[in-house]
Amino acid sequence: MRTVQRGEFEGGSVFIDGDWKPLSEAKVSMFDWGFTRSDVTYDVVSAWKGAFFRLDDHLDRFFASLDKLHMRIPYGRAEVRRILHGCVVAGGLDDAYVAMVCTRGVPPRGARDPRLATNRFYAYALPFVWIAHPEKQAAGIDLHVSSRIRIAPESVDPTIKNYHWIDLVLSMFDAYDRGADTSCVVDAQGNVAEGPGFNVFLVKDGIVRTPGRGVLEGISRKTVIELCGALGIPLRVEAVPAADLARADEVFLSSTGGGVLPIAKIDGQAFPRWPGPVTKRLQDAYWALHDDPRYRDPVVG
Amino acid sequence: MRTVQRGEFEGGSVFIDGDWKPLSEAKVSMFDWGFTRSDVTYDVVSAWKGAFFRLDDHLDRFFASLDKLHMRIPYGRAEVRRILHGCVVAGGLDDAYVAMVCTRGVPPRGARDPRLATNRFYAYALPFVWIAHPEKQAAGIDLHVSSRIRIAPESVDPTIKNYHWIDLVLSMFDAYDRGADTSCVVDAQGNVAEGPGFNVFLVKDGIVRTPGRGVLEGISRKTVIELCGALGIPLRVEAVPAADLARADEVFLSSTGGGVLPIAKIDGQAFPRWPGPVTKRLQDAYWALHDDPRYRDPVVG
Repeated sequence: MRTVQRGEFEGGSVFIDGDWKPLSEAKVSMFDWGFTRSDVTYDVVSAWKGAFFRLDDHLDRFFASLDKLHMRIPYGRAEVRRILHGCVVAGGLDDAYVAMVCTRGVPPRGARDPRLATNRFYAYALPFVWIAHPEKQAAGIDLHVSSRIRIAPESVDPTIKNYHWIDLVLSMFDAYDRGADTSCVVDAQGNVAEGPGFNVFLVKDGIVRTPGRGVLEGISRKTVIELCGALGIPLRVEAVPAADLARADEVFLSSTGGGVLPIAKIDGQAFPRWPGPVTKRLQDAYWALHDDPRYRDPVVG
Repeated sequence: MRTVQRGEFEGGSVFIDGDWKPLSEAKVSMFDWGFTRSDVTYDVVSAWKGAFFRLDDHLDRFFASLDKLHMRIPYGRAEVRRILHGCVVAGGLDDAYVAMVCTRGVPPRGARDPRLATNRFYAYALPFVWIAHPEKQAAGIDLHVSSRIRIAPESVDPTIKNYHWIDLVLSMFDAYDRGADTSCVVDAQGNVAEGPGFNVFLVKDGIVRTPGRGVLEGISRKTVIELCGALGIPLRVEAVPAADLARADEVFLSSTGGGVLPIAKIDGQAFPRWPGPVTKRLQDAYWALHDDPRYRDPVVG
């Protein structure tokens, strides 16, 4: 791999076919099973003020997802790390949304055996993407609690980060049509599952609760769980009935796309205190952790 | 739209950005939600000996899928029909696999509202694709009955033809690893659901049975159901316990990729009579229907 120049491709860069290129080159074949069967896994890590946050955790999860889908890429961990750094540098970015993606690939013409396809690896860096814009966060995020049922973990293992999102996308239509800002969906028993790109937490009587099953094991979720331990905030990882959200004292989301995001309203009904004190404490701690050398990985070309 | 020449692009053609092009142009943006959220619907129709088979049924289903996903395309039914004909002609094909695809598109930078994206329409024609190669069909298809659970209809409506296939793909790995040729999966109650690209039927004591719920409403499935009526073959559309497959007299698949396909073995256990008499009758009737002017739509340039 060559040495990239800072800002070669203003606004972002994609790594494809063994080299860094402008974002306009970020395309996949229509015949790749990554498209025609959503037979693909990915991960997203953030870079903030010139440093990756918890990159090792994201690499761990990505390589675990590859194993679970029987996928192989021609790059080891150190090379993927170098590719991701290169995407941020070539894109001239400080705060970035950085994705690594692996598709099944295109099997030989007429063949249907997924073992015969050569898996394809891609990566790209874009300017940082927020789950909700900072102005929206300041105005207060309204969360729609959808009755749509998330794809069950027995069908698609949510610990494999995947693009099976039709249920989540349709819940977003519901949310926008009602004037809400985003949505979360439930499991078949009516417990909270997750939202499009985030995990969900509530706080009631000083205790933090978040679903333990059937959800993506988010790195930001993990960060919140660890912070609760470090700060001595009681936490229960357990089934959370969806109805408990509107009765909570505080609700917040966790996502690589913004960290800890306070929710101001549930289906239009505002929380008396917002942002709540526990949410605020966790949010401050989340951003403080970005200066911790254990989690910081300065971007280098 | 321009007039295409027969065989402009030998071996197949894609319709993209308003024109017919060679298959190498068949690419989607990595930022299209059709990829990053599998927020896409499609349909596949076959052309056989120079004529589409039941094209109107496929168009009906495709436009219904678009509505269910709140998608719009800039082409009406007559134009889509013309585009599909053009793909086959430009590809110089007689027997073809012809797909129409609509993705959500790429929302404005940073936006997460799916209503803001411009949906994208694509179509392509490839040489006819068999669910199982004719040589494999002659040797006898071995079907693996997987205990993997198909994504529930409460999460993703299977009547919207979709690419949420990770469950099906992993069942194919199971099948190939066991030496079987393809696989079918079950629902949460252990009833047969469907396989990768086909519906499943069994015959026991002269009665044909096929699942009624949680499956794609295949056009080939519909053809078989109609043929049972026309031929006076008793049929039950109902829940079918997976264990009934191995105890059946005959099992067959229905798919645009081959019509009625007899199954020779279930997990290595051969049926005493194969292909069975009911399967054979339906298979012959399926192909005879291709000469019926009601279902035939000769390909024109």
